[in-house]
Order: sequence, then structure tokens, then C-alpha cells
Amino acid sequence: MRYSEKALIPFFMVTEDGTLSLANLVNLVQQVSERQLAGAASQTEMVKRYNIGWVITQSQIEITRMPRAEEHVTLWTEATSYNRLLCYRDYGVLDEQGNQLVIVHSTWVMMDLDTRKIVPIIDEIVEGFGAKKLTKVERLPRLPRFEDPEGERKYWVRYFDIDTNHHVNNVHYFDWMQDALGYDWMRTHKLVSANIKYEREVEPGTQLTSQYKVVREGGKTETYHQVRVGDTVNATAHLQWA
Amino acid sequence: MRYSEKALIPFFMVTEDGTLSLANLVNLVQQVSERQLAGAASQTEMVKRYNIGWVITQSQIEITRMPRAEEHVTLWTEATSYNRLLCYRDYGVLDEQGNQLVIVHSTWVMMDLDTRKIVPIIDEIVEGFGAKKLTKVERLPRLPRFEDPEGERKYWVRYFDIDTNHHVNNVHYFDWMQDALGYDWMRTHKLVSANIKYEREVEPGTQLTSQYKVVREGGKTETYHQVRVGDTVNATAHLQWA
Repeated sequence: MRYSEKALIPFFMVTEDGTLSLANLVNLVQQVSERQLAGAASQTEMVKRYNIGWVITQSQIEITRMPRAEEHVTLWTEATSYNRLLCYRDYGVLDEQGNQLVIVHSTWVMMDLDTRKIVPIIDEIVEGFGAKKLTKVERLPRLPRFEDPEGERKYWVRYFDIDTNHHVNNVHYFDWMQDALGYDWMRTHKLVSANIKYEREVEPGTQLTSQYKVVREGGKTETYHQVRVGDTVNATAHLQWA
Repeated sequence: MRYSEKALIPFFMVTEDGTLSLANLVNLVQQVSERQLAGAASQTEMVKRYNIGWVITQSQIEITRMPRAEEHVTLWTEATSYNRLLCYRDYGVLDEQGNQLVIVHSTWVMMDLDTRKIVPIIDEIVEGFGAKKLTKVERLPRLPRFEDPEGERKYWVRYFDIDTNHHVNNVHYFDWMQDALGYDWMRTHKLVSANIKYEREVEPGTQLTSQYKVVREGGKTETYHQVRVGDTVNATAHLQWA
């Protein structure tokens, strides 16, 4: 059950080169799934009845071309399948000719809003979106252990990073990770793919360290990233660049 | 000549309390004037011919109520008048019943894109929008000299703060100013008005200091702000809170 909306990319969401930033790309597509949920009255009611919320655990993003400022696009989303603990949701961006510009695969867990603990997926909720039950566990590409950072930057979690659930909006990790690479890097490289795993939420009011390592091998340019607060790892990521 | 567009406020643009942040409010309304300019072929051509860009110098914002996430609103803009050096542009946000939620008065100057110097307003460009020529200089409320900061925070200008013109998007000053007040302040106060004067652009890659002072007088709660890099003042502002 695919849900889609048309959108016009605003000027203020693009970077220096005139294309959408990764954080804003994810904001825009996640907005579409929020609207799919909000539009289904039964969903809103069930989420209330079970008192659960969705938490993202990983996303893998393939970029053919980032949309440009003032480009007309179609944003789509679909909860494709689920197993006992994970729900799989895809997102995409199409240009006016219907070409896929970006595709996002993501995994989500259900959290009990009182205990803040992960609970098994409630079939009734996800089947309303046409997600098919899987007996085996599918995985997005695994991220290697992050070791030997070659650079880092520190960031405070700002008031405006926090959403209405009093959590840090998950897109800010991308900004912290990419910004740490510096202006020169960002001006001379184009993002091709991103794979991010969310381990533990960064708390409002804390200072985090965004570490990176560059790997150039077999003609590929890759960066590995880790966001940490003290000894706690909050997120790791693997980005590929052209 | 008023230009308007309908909009639906996205989840990711609101703060913890579910209402639009000041920075995103200004992003949204300025987007509408960008579209008014882009839509006028003669404007695009003239701006190219004269090689000029618009630079904001001050804005004064009155907030009756900030729009909420998923609220349907109308965003409007109008270049009302101009004199030798300044162009006056208003913006507003209407709710579905046509009530004015927010109104913004702003002043702009024209900059020669080669010399980066301010040039006199070119009548031909602004008259295309119905702006009336004024012989006297109108002023937005003056900002007092900022003295005796009681607190400050430092911020680096991030890669994602920069727009396609290689300048810091002017809305980020609001985030730096408000964030410096801290979570407790932001959680217990509601913004009623803002008056900001842009003195000198913060350069990409620099670290700035956001200073503030709280004044409580005659039942009013006000904060004064200054963004500076070393001894250079980049912007000052006066915010009122309820």
C-alpha cells in the first residue's frame, strides 16, 4: 500500500550546490509517512489504544541525484513487511518524468510510550498498511565496528533539534556527521549513499562528539562516522561519495 | 501587489510545543517572496541585467499565534514601498478563517554582486511589484545599543547554514539567539514579537558568540540579543515574551 504526495523543493532546504541536503531529504519523506499515519483514523486510534510510538533503528539511502531547489517531485512511502520486532518501510523521490532519484530502506521498532521499552510489533497496526509478515529476519547492510577516528567535532544538542515527542529528530545525525567533514570536503564531494544505524538516542542538552574516518580503496571514496556521548555510541554510519 | 500561497505546516518545522519555530516561519514566508520574484520573468531578467541581489537589513515580527504542525495556512507577501536606499516588504500568515496569525515588516537593500557594495534602489525593478516611492525615510522600530550581556553561548557556522549564494541564511540568527537562552527559558516562555537588525554577515567557517540580556519591567518580559564575532557586531535583536 504505497502512499505518495507531490512536493516542490524549497530554496531553504538546499545546500550551496542547489540540491536538497540529506537531513532535509529524510525530513520530507518521513513527513509523508507521518501523513499516511495521520490520515488513517484507525491507525491514530490504535496507536493511542496500545500507547506505542515508532522508533527508527536503521536507514539505507541510495542517491541517483538529489532534487534541486524548486524542482517538482513525488515523495512516496510504503510499509513493505515486518517480523516479530522490526517493520520495514521504504521511501522514494521521483522526478517529474517518474525517474527514481532517491530510494530509502528503513527499519522501525515499536516502543511502549510509558516504559520506553521496545515491544514486539503489533500485527493489527502494520497490517492496516498492507505490510506482509516475514518469518525470517531481513537485515539492511551491516555496519562495521567504527575504529581509529581521524577527525572529530563537538556539537551541543540545541533546543530546535528537539521534536514534539521531546526527542532529537533523527535527521540531525546526518548534519553532525557531514558537517564534521568540513567545508572543503562537502564542497568537493557528492553523496552517493548513506547507511546509518541508530543505537541510542542523544539526550537533549548534552554535548556529543561526531567522529569520522575516510577510506579510499578500489576507486571508491567512503567515510565512516560515529556519534558518541562519552563512552556511549549513539549512531554509526557509512557514507559513499563521488 | 500582494502575492500569496497556501501551505501545510510540516511536523519537522515545529518545536517541542507543536508550533512553528521563528526561523522556519521566516524561511516559509521568504520562500514565498522568492517565488514571487522567480515567477516574474521580467524580474529575473532585470536582476541579471543589473547584477544585483537583495540583502535583508531588518525585520520586525508580531506574533498573535504561531501556526501548528499540520495546520493549513496562507502565506502572503507584498513589496509596499521604497526610497532611495531601502525597499519595504511585508509578509503574513493567515489561518483557514483568514485571521492574521503573524505579520512581518522588513527592509531590504540592493547589493551589486560584483563589488558586494550597497547600491541605490533601481526603480524599474521594484515598481514591477507595485511598490510606491517614498520621499522620506521610514524606519522600523530602532534597536537600543546592546550592553552588559548576562549570558552567552558560542556557535560555529555549519556547512548546512549556508545558502546557494554562499551566505549564511539569515534565519539562523534566530536559532542562535533563542537557543542561547536555554531549554528552561524556551520551555516556559512564548514569543510575542521579534525585532532584528542585521549589521554584518557572519562568514562561513567562523565561530560566533550569541549574547543575551533579560529585562523584566512593567509586567513585560523582554530579551536583548547580540551576535558577534570578536569585536564585530553581526546582528542585534529585541524579543518580547509572554
